[in-house]
Amino acid sequence: MEKSKELLQTISPKEVHIQDEFWSGYNKLVREVVIPYQYDALHDRIADAEPSHAIKNFEIAAGRSEGEFHGFVFQDTDVAKWIEAVGYSLMTHPDPELERITDEVIQLVSEAQGEDGYLNTYFTIKEPDKRWTNLADCHELYTAGHMIEAGVAYYQATGKRQLLDVVCRLADYIDTVFGPEEGKLRGYDGHQEIELALVKLYRLTGEEKYLRLSQFFIDERGQQPNFLKQEWENRDRINFFVGKTDRIDLAYSQAHVPVREQKVAVGHAVRAVYMYTAMADLAGQTGDESLYEACKTLWNNIVHKQMYVTGGIGSTHHGEAFTIDYDLPNDTVYSETCAAVGMVFFAHRMLQIQPRGEYADVLERALYNTVTGGMSQDGKHYFYVNPLEVWPAACHHNPDKHHVKPVRQKWFGCSCCPPNVARLITSLGQYIYSSDEDTIYTHLYVGASADLPIGGRNVRIQQETGYPWNGASRFTFTLEKPQSFTLALRLPGWCKQAALTINGETVQYASLLRDGYVYIQREWSDDDVVEWNVEMDVQVIHANPKLRATAGKVALQRGPLVYCLEQADNGELIAALQIETDQPMTARFDETLLGGCTIIEGSAIREQEQNWGEALYQDHAPEQTRQSFTAIPYFMWGNRGEGDMAVWIRKA
Amino acid sequence: MEKSKELLQTISPKEVHIQDEFWSGYNKLVREVVIPYQYDALHDRIADAEPSHAIKNFEIAAGRSEGEFHGFVFQDTDVAKWIEAVGYSLMTHPDPELERITDEVIQLVSEAQGEDGYLNTYFTIKEPDKRWTNLADCHELYTAGHMIEAGVAYYQATGKRQLLDVVCRLADYIDTVFGPEEGKLRGYDGHQEIELALVKLYRLTGEEKYLRLSQFFIDERGQQPNFLKQEWENRDRINFFVGKTDRIDLAYSQAHVPVREQKVAVGHAVRAVYMYTAMADLAGQTGDESLYEACKTLWNNIVHKQMYVTGGIGSTHHGEAFTIDYDLPNDTVYSETCAAVGMVFFAHRMLQIQPRGEYADVLERALYNTVTGGMSQDGKHYFYVNPLEVWPAACHHNPDKHHVKPVRQKWFGCSCCPPNVARLITSLGQYIYSSDEDTIYTHLYVGASADLPIGGRNVRIQQETGYPWNGASRFTFTLEKPQSFTLALRLPGWCKQAALTINGETVQYASLLRDGYVYIQREWSDDDVVEWNVEMDVQVIHANPKLRATAGKVALQRGPLVYCLEQADNGELIAALQIETDQPMTARFDETLLGGCTIIEGSAIREQEQNWGEALYQDHAPEQTRQSFTAIPYFMWGNRGEGDMAVWIRKA
Repeated sequence: MEKSKELLQTISPKEVHIQDEFWSGYNKLVREVVIPYQYDALHDRIADAEPSHAIKNFEIAAGRSEGEFHGFVFQDTDVAKWIEAVGYSLMTHPDPELERITDEVIQLVSEAQGEDGYLNTYFTIKEPDKRWTNLADCHELYTAGHMIEAGVAYYQATGKRQLLDVVCRLADYIDTVFGPEEGKLRGYDGHQEIELALVKLYRLTGEEKYLRLSQFFIDERGQQPNFLKQEWENRDRINFFVGKTDRIDLAYSQAHVPVREQKVAVGHAVRAVYMYTAMADLAGQTGDESLYEACKTLWNNIVHKQMYVTGGIGSTHHGEAFTIDYDLPNDTVYSETCAAVGMVFFAHRMLQIQPRGEYADVLERALYNTVTGGMSQDGKHYFYVNPLEVWPAACHHNPDKHHVKPVRQKWFGCSCCPPNVARLITSLGQYIYSSDEDTIYTHLYVGASADLPIGGRNVRIQQETGYPWNGASRFTFTLEKPQSFTLALRLPGWCKQAALTINGETVQYASLLRDGYVYIQREWSDDDVVEWNVEMDVQVIHANPKLRATAGKVALQRGPLVYCLEQADNGELIAALQIETDQPMTARFDETLLGGCTIIEGSAIREQEQNWGEALYQDHAPEQTRQSFTAIPYFMWGNRGEGDMAVWIRKA
Repeated sequence: MEKSKELLQTISPKEVHIQDEFWSGYNKLVREVVIPYQYDALHDRIADAEPSHAIKNFEIAAGRSEGEFHGFVFQDTDVAKWIEAVGYSLMTHPDPELERITDEVIQLVSEAQGEDGYLNTYFTIKEPDKRWTNLADCHELYTAGHMIEAGVAYYQATGKRQLLDVVCRLADYIDTVFGPEEGKLRGYDGHQEIELALVKLYRLTGEEKYLRLSQFFIDERGQQPNFLKQEWENRDRINFFVGKTDRIDLAYSQAHVPVREQKVAVGHAVRAVYMYTAMADLAGQTGDESLYEACKTLWNNIVHKQMYVTGGIGSTHHGEAFTIDYDLPNDTVYSETCAAVGMVFFAHRMLQIQPRGEYADVLERALYNTVTGGMSQDGKHYFYVNPLEVWPAACHHNPDKHHVKPVRQKWFGCSCCPPNVARLITSLGQYIYSSDEDTIYTHLYVGASADLPIGGRNVRIQQETGYPWNGASRFTFTLEKPQSFTLALRLPGWCKQAALTINGETVQYASLLRDGYVYIQREWSDDDVVEWNVEMDVQVIHANPKLRATAGKVALQRGPLVYCLEQADNGELIAALQIETDQPMTARFDETLLGGCTIIEGSAIREQEQNWGEALYQDHAPEQTRQSFTAIPYFMWGNRGEGDMAVWIRKA
């Protein structure tokens, strides 16, 4: 376990107090709107939304009431993710009333646990004798994993052990069922999640068996004879959702070959990135080089061949899955919000092993574009799918696009994404910094003060920033006494020009730059002021020519934000526009638009349909006119009703 | 029935002997390969292809053998379409052995008919008590319709009444079951077909009740209370294919509103165009103006808003259906071969009511691009789906494109398309000319001699042509004696320049041109030679700017042929090419390529992936190089193994 010494230290969100123009609003929204809204949703109190029945299931399993199980087989996880989000929120924003109602939910959850430690309302209510007979489809360990994450977060927030004890009993029980030993199941879940949760539980409790169990699940996956295939044969080839099947798609669950032999990201995208996250956790924790190599290979495959410019992943709604390298259609896309959340997890874990700017670049790209885009500005509407090109009429009337919604939805029958966004936002603090013995790494530019242990002392670092609208950040410290350490500032991959001053004096940073971080080593005192300005220019982004879907098109990016053109600003038929990238484009902050955002304006050519006539096809080009265009940040799209939207625009 | 007097006379394929560089080969292929191959397929004798079981079903229904029904509920139609194709072939190419084996098949079919006239092997074998209980799904009248078409064609070819008598008994029986009278079903089939077949049967027999029954089916469709909906309620909302359903999609079968209220083509594309064909048949036959108006409205909707440049229709594989106006994706496309065949039917019927060039233009477009493209040059492989853009790897690995095959297939479980192509090709003669009392209309340029009744006398018209490779055609006549009549030559919509000579003398045709036809009235004699040259230039085709899928792209067309770029000629990644339409493009006949075809060559710019590096996205454009491109006729694509293909190419 030599490697664990080298791991960067993750900073608990408890130690990071965000005060930020951009994020404080999000955090407030989650605290004041999303958490209460989702609490109501879990209790089936949202009018016009599909009832969740998640709390009701726990009440029935706990014996408090009678009734049938309803919802997905993994319905419990909506409750778990809500508790986890509450935990992170309480870390920095104590709220006795919220804590009280959460304690009530936790009491309910604990009553639903069996004497042996088993906890899963579906099997407890509906098929008590079918436990562990369909790992491929039934998400039993996945569900356990989310409850473990909730137990860890809530304990860290409140110091209350009730849910932590529940999940330790649950994990202990699972450890008696699964493992390499004679008489145990050599199995694993169809949907990865428990693997990363067990690492968290190990880190909190120090209990080695949780780490071993996680490693077992990862190592066993895809081995021969194939557990999921055997299990499927044993149940007479019954799939839980569709009945009798004539084949099982092991790649869908990344169980087709052992994880170290996987070179290409395949299958269900959320399962994949949750697994890669756990692999990176384990590689970092245990120093497992072959596992780390597999992580790097899979990272490179996604980032260099299968990731949308918005940081989204998953090209098809069939199986919510990856397809093949360079296949990134913009309109039949999936790019699930949860997969972008998972991409943040994976990037974060890779960054802890090795602080390379590329990992933070991708983390930032997924966070600022797809994760934030997944939730409306009112906190009550969500995207499950995050398209890069939308024609609303086709979404409504062409079944190939039925999964693409032109506006955010209130809730979903399978509502994995809303609480996933909530828990990510409330835990955002942990992604801003890392530390090791003598270095503070600044990964994200978010206004916040954080307490970090450096050289045996507490260092408080204060950050103010104009991000994501401008790249000027300012750092100060509160120290016990002047102290030598290194401040490592990330130079974003998109940044072409930056300026560094310390106490007003310009510092040439080029020689201090390594792998995307500028390392400033000196003795720091409370009077020191570091100003770091990563200039945000409008950038015209091209894609690899192998990416067929974007051929001839460009995207606009400024700082971490990818932009899009919407009908509301540019008229219908965005497809008929070509932007003139050789003309000046200007960025300006528009206070009135969508609560304030930086827009990009420029010149475009439009093919006119007015004088075209009736024929669909003619042997001459349509007339062209010039118009101005306005691009808005992609994450803000779809907040002004239905209309055409596109990220990739033809270049004149 | 005043209108019927104005209908142009359709020429029986029996009267038209094709001798043509292009089509004689196809006809020979159908006679020598396709008909025998499909005979073997119907008898389950093709190795590696899904067994048809179609003949076996008839043997069981006829009591000749024991066993279960297999195949689709409409499996009988493959036999019917085969007999129909044989019928057309025998009209001009007598073949005693083929006739003998077809007579055997017909004997078998007649033995499978019930005493009451009912004929359908599925219901006879499997659910004899369920007749007429699921018109929505079970294709009973559709199947009857195809057998009626076969009976008509085979009688016209051979004078043999056996199958004609079978289908008359069948139609007589159906007439006792369906109709407006008390005690009859006020119903119609989910899949239109019998409507157009009954018009054919009426025209052959003169029996008015067949025409009335067809009109009843058309008039009743979509009326309230809705027959298909009531029927569905009556069977406890069971769908034959998927079981219990919570809704029935009436638009899928064009039964959502009465046909005269339908303004937009919706639902299953083949059902739609078969219905519009029957509507045009009836409107022409009976002078029903409101029905004719509906035909024109639906025609305009398809041709001006929902038709691919290849003449294909149907934008989605979900329901094999139309979607909405201007939604014509090139890669997730359906464009079923059968729908293009149906489009030929619809265009042909509209042309008989009013000889307007637009109808023949569309007929020609569908015929020369999608129908011919549907069959391989060896006559043994077929496309069901006819994409305009193919990336084979995505077809194999992205489930959104699983229906798009990069090469033609041997046979299909649902093998409607191969025999549909066969029957269209063997009956091609009927689409070349029409006549009225004193005019010969030339719709298609195909080398052929035809006997037409003009002014009470037989006129033999001989045509030689270079079509589709060049537009020079030559007409001569064999007359009883010199005779006055009008020769109407179609000026194709794509043609910008034509030249007409009579006996070597140039004729200015502009003043003779009306609605796409040049009307030449004079006294003709056997010595007259008409030369009509419709010049074929390479044309750069643009689409209406509302057609999002083709924005920034052009297609190449020359004469009736739409072109495409294939990987075999241009390298992989057609998407990375932009053709330079301002540089010269040349067309030349390449005798060695694909058995000989005219190719288009020109200059293109390619975005290079070689020096791009690892990143998917960068803030600079890829390097560009110049290369030549070669375009081949679209109908010939996919004959050289798997590779990229595109009809719409970016314009530099």
